[in-house]
Amino acid sequence: MSASVSVPDLKPFFAPASVALVGSTDDLTRFAGRVLMRIMNFGYKGKVFPVNPRFKEVRGIKCYPSVRDLPEAPDHVGIVVPTERVMGILEDCAARGARFATIYSGGFAETGTAEGRAMQAAITAFARKTGMRVMGPNCNGMVNFIDGFAMTTSATVAKRQPAGNVGVVAQSGGAGQVNVMWRAQEAGVGISYEVSCGNSADLNILDFMQFMIDDAATDVIMVLAEHIPDGARLLEVAQRAAARAKPIVMVKLGRTEAGSHAAASHTGAMAGADEICDAALRQCGIIRVDDCNELYETAMLLRTRRWPRGARVAATTISGGNGVLLVDLGASLGLTFPAYGAQTQAQLATVLPKHGTTCNPTDVTNAAIGNPDMFKRCIEAIAADQNIDVIVPIFTLSVASDVRQAAEAAKSADKPVAILWTGACNDDPALTARSLALEGVAVYRNTLSCLKAVRAAVRYGEFLRRPHTASTRPTDIDVAAARVQLQAATGTLTERVSKAVLAAYGFPVTGEAMARNADEAVRIAADLGGELALKIESADIPHKTEAGAIRLRVSGDAAVRKAYDEVIAAASAYKKAARLDGVLVQQMAPPGLEFMLGLVCDPVFGPVVVAGLGGIHVEVLRDLAYRVAPVDHAGAHAMLRELRGCKMLEGVRGAAPRDIDALCDLIVRLSWLGHDCGDQIAELDINPLVLYAQGEGARVVDALIVRRPPG
Amino acid sequence: MSASVSVPDLKPFFAPASVALVGSTDDLTRFAGRVLMRIMNFGYKGKVFPVNPRFKEVRGIKCYPSVRDLPEAPDHVGIVVPTERVMGILEDCAARGARFATIYSGGFAETGTAEGRAMQAAITAFARKTGMRVMGPNCNGMVNFIDGFAMTTSATVAKRQPAGNVGVVAQSGGAGQVNVMWRAQEAGVGISYEVSCGNSADLNILDFMQFMIDDAATDVIMVLAEHIPDGARLLEVAQRAAARAKPIVMVKLGRTEAGSHAAASHTGAMAGADEICDAALRQCGIIRVDDCNELYETAMLLRTRRWPRGARVAATTISGGNGVLLVDLGASLGLTFPAYGAQTQAQLATVLPKHGTTCNPTDVTNAAIGNPDMFKRCIEAIAADQNIDVIVPIFTLSVASDVRQAAEAAKSADKPVAILWTGACNDDPALTARSLALEGVAVYRNTLSCLKAVRAAVRYGEFLRRPHTASTRPTDIDVAAARVQLQAATGTLTERVSKAVLAAYGFPVTGEAMARNADEAVRIAADLGGELALKIESADIPHKTEAGAIRLRVSGDAAVRKAYDEVIAAASAYKKAARLDGVLVQQMAPPGLEFMLGLVCDPVFGPVVVAGLGGIHVEVLRDLAYRVAPVDHAGAHAMLRELRGCKMLEGVRGAAPRDIDALCDLIVRLSWLGHDCGDQIAELDINPLVLYAQGEGARVVDALIVRRPPG
Repeated sequence: MSASVSVPDLKPFFAPASVALVGSTDDLTRFAGRVLMRIMNFGYKGKVFPVNPRFKEVRGIKCYPSVRDLPEAPDHVGIVVPTERVMGILEDCAARGARFATIYSGGFAETGTAEGRAMQAAITAFARKTGMRVMGPNCNGMVNFIDGFAMTTSATVAKRQPAGNVGVVAQSGGAGQVNVMWRAQEAGVGISYEVSCGNSADLNILDFMQFMIDDAATDVIMVLAEHIPDGARLLEVAQRAAARAKPIVMVKLGRTEAGSHAAASHTGAMAGADEICDAALRQCGIIRVDDCNELYETAMLLRTRRWPRGARVAATTISGGNGVLLVDLGASLGLTFPAYGAQTQAQLATVLPKHGTTCNPTDVTNAAIGNPDMFKRCIEAIAADQNIDVIVPIFTLSVASDVRQAAEAAKSADKPVAILWTGACNDDPALTARSLALEGVAVYRNTLSCLKAVRAAVRYGEFLRRPHTASTRPTDIDVAAARVQLQAATGTLTERVSKAVLAAYGFPVTGEAMARNADEAVRIAADLGGELALKIESADIPHKTEAGAIRLRVSGDAAVRKAYDEVIAAASAYKKAARLDGVLVQQMAPPGLEFMLGLVCDPVFGPVVVAGLGGIHVEVLRDLAYRVAPVDHAGAHAMLRELRGCKMLEGVRGAAPRDIDALCDLIVRLSWLGHDCGDQIAELDINPLVLYAQGEGARVVDALIVRRPPG
Repeated sequence: MSASVSVPDLKPFFAPASVALVGSTDDLTRFAGRVLMRIMNFGYKGKVFPVNPRFKEVRGIKCYPSVRDLPEAPDHVGIVVPTERVMGILEDCAARGARFATIYSGGFAETGTAEGRAMQAAITAFARKTGMRVMGPNCNGMVNFIDGFAMTTSATVAKRQPAGNVGVVAQSGGAGQVNVMWRAQEAGVGISYEVSCGNSADLNILDFMQFMIDDAATDVIMVLAEHIPDGARLLEVAQRAAARAKPIVMVKLGRTEAGSHAAASHTGAMAGADEICDAALRQCGIIRVDDCNELYETAMLLRTRRWPRGARVAATTISGGNGVLLVDLGASLGLTFPAYGAQTQAQLATVLPKHGTTCNPTDVTNAAIGNPDMFKRCIEAIAADQNIDVIVPIFTLSVASDVRQAAEAAKSADKPVAILWTGACNDDPALTARSLALEGVAVYRNTLSCLKAVRAAVRYGEFLRRPHTASTRPTDIDVAAARVQLQAATGTLTERVSKAVLAAYGFPVTGEAMARNADEAVRIAADLGGELALKIESADIPHKTEAGAIRLRVSGDAAVRKAYDEVIAAASAYKKAARLDGVLVQQMAPPGLEFMLGLVCDPVFGPVVVAGLGGIHVEVLRDLAYRVAPVDHAGAHAMLRELRGCKMLEGVRGAAPRDIDALCDLIVRLSWLGHDCGDQIAELDINPLVLYAQGEGARVVDALIVRRPPG
């Protein structure tokens, strides 16, 4: 965890009392010329200090040769100079007492060169040493619509749009400022702040997200992330957002980087996979969307801060086909369209006397004729219905008075209202989806966009209602015993040692002991009794079946002796140089449902628990669920429900329901092993874990731990 | 097949030399008043005959008391009268020699009443009898942008938009005319014809689709279908479209109607499922999309009629983040972004001397400065590259000259070019995504929309390149033998009879015979030899395992006798009234991979083959693939590739690859059984079909056929 990272108050970064721009010029073909022009034109009320030794005056105001010469310590310094001069300027800034600097210049880590990376590392070190906080390098600055301060080249701020309650955080300039910020404003979603933080040598997207979560002007945060700098801190920031009920909507790039590296275990191959990121974001309530427009389309509804209590949608429509389309696509997204309560039906019958039925969706075609407040009365009646959580009034080509009624009802209802308006206004060209959105109403042009936003709101409501208790470590876990076993090992642990680690965390493992010769094997077999498995014990042979160094269902002295010799022979033949510790003599577990549990150390999110049905479910179908450790019992249950093959646990083809509680308990235990010993474990695979009928528990039949390389 | 349905020439329907409107009035609050106003204002050049006994003159032209009184036979008559008067008017039309009528009036089948359905059936019968073709009832007419004729109330035609090469076919009025037609035009996609054909008593969406396929003015057809009137004819129409390389893009509603009815077999439960419709549309090259906006977004690129030769995309971008987003989302849709060929790289290096690398996506940020034809030269170089199939130039906020170059390159390139323009034009407000689209260029505002259209074009290109040979019936099939078995049966066929039907179609079945007493069982067992299965034979007990009336791996006279008695006893205990024919004595099939094949009679598409891996793949994961019968060998292969668990066929966990060729052969045979005997079969399940290693074939272990009820 990185709770210790100091989080600065970024208010003077976004709304500085004074700002300096190093590299200032009147020349608008130059980057710095455009930045200065934007600062001046955006309506900034603070002091501006151009800095450039070549000019006495820029844009009609006094220009200073160096930051050191400024008449006062600036809150924020913008830096547009050649790469190699950046460090010197930063030193000037610190010397003059600047609190924040934004480095626009490129030529750092983004070049992919060792030199570029070293220069960027120097910036990081400088910020840590001096306490002056730095955005960039290689960035395109920020915009503050609340207080009126823009320090960027972007033509998106040429005309200052009205402020709103939605923030934008991006690493990219072009995509963040155009695809997200400007397009959101075009759609009528007002923005509070925007940052394009570039290479993030010091301040990163998490710092800016946290600022917006804490800031009163921002209710929803839209994030376009090319990468996540720190998974643990993301979870903390998300928790903070949840506590204030401020939704985070995110486009996370990097879907295609998925773990292509070779790994010893099935689980290990998943590290860095996009599925893990997906699960982590879901786990902490961050709403992930695919494309930039979905960010503001989702925020459009969320910014009204009305959380649906369920997934029950009602619609009114002036087009039958549009009602069918809404229900059809809505059902495919898990939304329902229940019948109205009796009181609502009675009320609707008085508003729509000629329409006979008062179904949901409610077809109000032509009902407004001679019924001037029909929409208002319909929507108010529906909004009062206990069976309904979200209302979608649908319009195509409509008259202003009808659409206005729905918009006013949307503002006053205490339930979320998403207007779907596929056409335009017949009688007032000034009334548009955008004009209504600028009033704070959620208006959609397309059915699917509307429904996706509704679903996001429904899920966010569910997330907020869910109890957010922290997972607690089961008291019978022997952390020290597990660490002793782990620390004694290097590379791949044998099955026996891997199971010993798991046993310390309360996992039920098969009765077993290692034999160093055939006589010992016979003795152990007699002690254990029943049918036995004999498996080679060698850290050099993690895949025993592949080596043929395994014998199953062995019983009787002679058979044990023969199996011992065969296992040793097969292992030797398979890998001549392998160090053979002996042969593991093991009780056969009774048959049950094969399950797979694993741990993987994700480069961003740290220890992650993986669960799936065994065999082909993992190998062929990749039907796996993930959670960042630690996980509580409810989280473990939710994981299992995410599996496509989840029904197998309930018992199919006459099989009894499996012991899901025991399985969840083991998931919690495994997550604590990841949490406690993640520094030691690179990969862990329990495959199979055999799961028995309800009340009869589970048994670890095979397990494999790969130690994390030191450092 | 319904090839015999006569298809009229609909040109006089869309472009009548003369038109009459029954119910004409000057009153614009009346439906007919608005229809007449639209006819007059849209620029119609033919003769207009208002009909209404109440007026001498309407809109300043002579009004006739009845269609019978018209001075000439009108090509097309619009009918807006109360429900009960419709039939009389139709008779007038036929008497006067009208060729087409459109009934706008409602009150027919859409009311859900027997009376409404009967009145609609009368219209259908009338059209069949007279040969006069009828659109509607309960519809909102049509628009012809090519010749200038609109007969509809819709305000979407208040201003006549320029014609284009994309047609619209819908049942719905509001959704078809606003969500699809008007929105397409707003996006710059010109429309040729639009119909909203309502209840489809006579002419239906397939007739209009066929007209547009045959019509020279239309290159792409957008369909919003609430239901598909005739699956077999849809396949024919789609084939006709494919022959002319005219893509059909479709929103098909009714996803949520999926087979909720009880059925005897797993396969049977799928009838009417949306998955079948999905598979049928894919099979015949129709591009299915989810929402109305995706119709014109897809058509935007397809209307350029350039078919990609593969999925290899190149991009230029002035925003790094946008390049990352494109590649990221593109990869998730199966598109690739390969490196350029050496010649392209060399050419790009001369255009972009300062940019060093010439990667794909090609980052051209700032490269246009002092390089006025940079975009033209870049895109031309890339368009000539043999490694590239589609080009996506990306712009955010840009100057007109840059965007213009990309648009001109898009027009002249012989590869599809989809411009992604997330922002706007800095220096020319008249240059917009819409203005370029109106010039015929494909321009997208959102990354995912752009990529989805590219993927649709890629898939359509693949579809056109695929050889479209018809499936031929294997010559060794004994259709007569199968029909004899089927015709002798009623209800559920026993396993033995079901297998006999399959054997006639060349399926390898287990050696077996029915015993009527224990002695017979012993004799049969001796003949068959080896380990045997004994199963109850009773049409009243289709689920033998559930009844416990099955014994496996039986050998030896005494064991066979005991098993016989036990099976009879279990069956009697399970269902006292069941008629027990005897006990089936059957060779045990050697173990192999369990597969499931089935036939289902879909209410729209007729006999459909279903394939999936057996057991939990079907029951829990519902991992199934579908094809409308008959299927050829290549189609069978493609079906198998659609299965999530497809890898199982290649052999996993050390298993040998399965005999995929034998499996495909059986799929083809089964599809012919559906084609030949679909009139007799309601459901058919082969579960399991045991599939052996390559070259070793397969064996039907259990099978169940349910006869179609007569009529």
